Amino acid sequence: MKRRNFLRTAGIGAAASAVAAPAIAQDVLQWKMVTAWPKNLPGPGVAAQKLADRITLLSGGRIEVQLFGAGELVPGNGVFDAVSQGTADLYHAVPSYWGSKSKAILLFCSQPFGLTATEQVGWMSYGGGQELYDEVYAGFGLKPFLCGNSGPQWAGWFREPINSAEDLKGLRFRSTGLASEMCTKLGMSVQALSGGEMFQALQSGALDAGEFIGPWTDAAVGYQQIAKNYYWPGIGEPGSAEECAVNLSSWEALPDDLKAAVRAACESLYNEVLTEYLTNHARALSELVANDGVQVHRLPDDVLAAMWTAAGEVYDELLAGDETTKKVTESFMAYRDLIAGYQVQSEAGAINARAAAMGV
Amino acid sequence: MKRRNFLRTAGIGAAASAVAAPAIAQDVLQWKMVTAWPKNLPGPGVAAQKLADRITLLSGGRIEVQLFGAGELVPGNGVFDAVSQGTADLYHAVPSYWGSKSKAILLFCSQPFGLTATEQVGWMSYGGGQELYDEVYAGFGLKPFLCGNSGPQWAGWFREPINSAEDLKGLRFRSTGLASEMCTKLGMSVQALSGGEMFQALQSGALDAGEFIGPWTDAAVGYQQIAKNYYWPGIGEPGSAEECAVNLSSWEALPDDLKAAVRAACESLYNEVLTEYLTNHARALSELVANDGVQVHRLPDDVLAAMWTAAGEVYDELLAGDETTKKVTESFMAYRDLIAGYQVQSEAGAINARAAAMGV
Repeated sequence: MKRRNFLRTAGIGAAASAVAAPAIAQDVLQWKMVTAWPKNLPGPGVAAQKLADRITLLSGGRIEVQLFGAGELVPGNGVFDAVSQGTADLYHAVPSYWGSKSKAILLFCSQPFGLTATEQVGWMSYGGGQELYDEVYAGFGLKPFLCGNSGPQWAGWFREPINSAEDLKGLRFRSTGLASEMCTKLGMSVQALSGGEMFQALQSGALDAGEFIGPWTDAAVGYQQIAKNYYWPGIGEPGSAEECAVNLSSWEALPDDLKAAVRAACESLYNEVLTEYLTNHARALSELVANDGVQVHRLPDDVLAAMWTAAGEVYDELLAGDETTKKVTESFMAYRDLIAGYQVQSEAGAINARAAAMGV
Repeated sequence: MKRRNFLRTAGIGAAASAVAAPAIAQDVLQWKMVTAWPKNLPGPGVAAQKLADRITLLSGGRIEVQLFGAGELVPGNGVFDAVSQGTADLYHAVPSYWGSKSKAILLFCSQPFGLTATEQVGWMSYGGGQELYDEVYAGFGLKPFLCGNSGPQWAGWFREPINSAEDLKGLRFRSTGLASEMCTKLGMSVQALSGGEMFQALQSGALDAGEFIGPWTDAAVGYQQIAKNYYWPGIGEPGSAEECAVNLSSWEALPDDLKAAVRAACESLYNEVLTEYLTNHARALSELVANDGVQVHRLPDDVLAAMWTAAGEVYDELLAGDETTKKVTESFMAYRDLIAGYQVQSEAGAINARAAAMGV
């Protein structure tokens, strides 16, 4: 007798409430989520906890996700390997941490002169991005999803104004990911530090300048106390995605509805994370200007032109790399080329016309 | 004895498969979804079907959503009342259809010189928008969610180029929602027609010009055969949201995990819909220019300035309206004012710098 029929026969089905609810104890999956962040770090740490809770809730309690902060089960930079090897079931991090596994992975996070947060979803959904993301991560025993984005980042904090590309040469600068490779091509001396280390290095004079994320997160670290010139656009990172990856065996063992629960938890979190950054960045920037004497500047055109040339050299190297990296780079470029002109008329067209009318 | 314990004791828990799956028949909710669209109409009709399927899947089969196209159960413009009255359980439509219920509702869809798709989510999540959306719809026995967005719309198709605000006066023009009120203030003779009716009216000469959505959807109707001048930015509708609303009693009877399933289905669909428009709009615009001789123009500055003045008159009327409409308008304006300047440096800053570098 099928279990369903057994229970029906036993009259238990009839005893269920008028509104469907989880009705019987089932074997509950106990999933360990490891993260690259301290627990409840504003921004990504909070997002990781939301994701854990949302998967638990959407599963109807059939998956119980327990979150471990960086260092609790494995170090923050060890979460990729831990989930790959099955020490944990899933992680929350950013793709840009895993460039040593494959250069291709960096493109799923952020690309100089690349995709905004929404466009990144477009590449995933309609430009072949998710298939490639799946393929690359499957090689490491992982199933990946994008689950958040910080939006366009800022170009960085500088003690002195930047008047030309010449001013960048030799500058000791904090950056990460493909943006840092672009900076190296510009003759900058790039150091990959944490946000806190960047503050200390600026304070001690070991660093001349640096970029972290955007006004909200940056103000919390306190860079405005040391370097007063804050530059936009952060064209090295027009978006920067957060990701969740599930152990591939754990993923493949899930029934379709629980697969859908994990996917929907990630997808539904994306704009929640993105607009938290947007809202808080906008509020924080006003305060930085009003209260901290921060000077906001646009990067000069010749600096942007030099950055474009430098970014081109970075992409040339990716295209000359291994077959996977070449394929992912070509796919990203094709989507960027498709939407770049259109977005000037569409998204930026609306934003700029509104601001011009409002005089802001 | 608790049911969970009973089943555990009976040994049924131990017999479950290693992977949790829906294990017994439960009372399944049969939900009727009505929509404002023909079944599987490209764009919103397809999105409605995706939403129905996603709720069913995420519920683990505890809700079975059956979709009815416009006219199958109730007319497309009757879905709000049908769900309000409990004839159906939920609908998929756009808020701009319900301005006769409350002017405030129009703001949840689209606002002249207002919010982009992502910003609209920001207003909902971090600017008090969802609370107001809930409050207004609760007055009609509904629980609403945004579940998609067409992105920035286009300003419209014109037989002759528009060189000044004077050229708009007396123009017989198709538009809808608050954008149409802005157009009326500009001296245009506005007609609210369907997309198909707009085509016929342009063809017969009953209409001089009109806006519908954007390149993908517009090209499918065929406006490019008649009017060759296509204008951006569609500042009357910088975004245009799609919505799902659930009968409030049906909603309140759901357990938390099924509430989460409905919410996540809507939220996870938002970017999927938005980036489908983005991707297809970008592709279609290239083809319109290459194959159909369409001339793409930016609206002249003085036209945009006149539109801003006209939009201000529309908002003055909303602020002078009933208390609810005033409250929603003020909330929208506060969020717009918060992010308008920031987005020039952030989202538009990245898009424009990329395009300038690429020469597109």
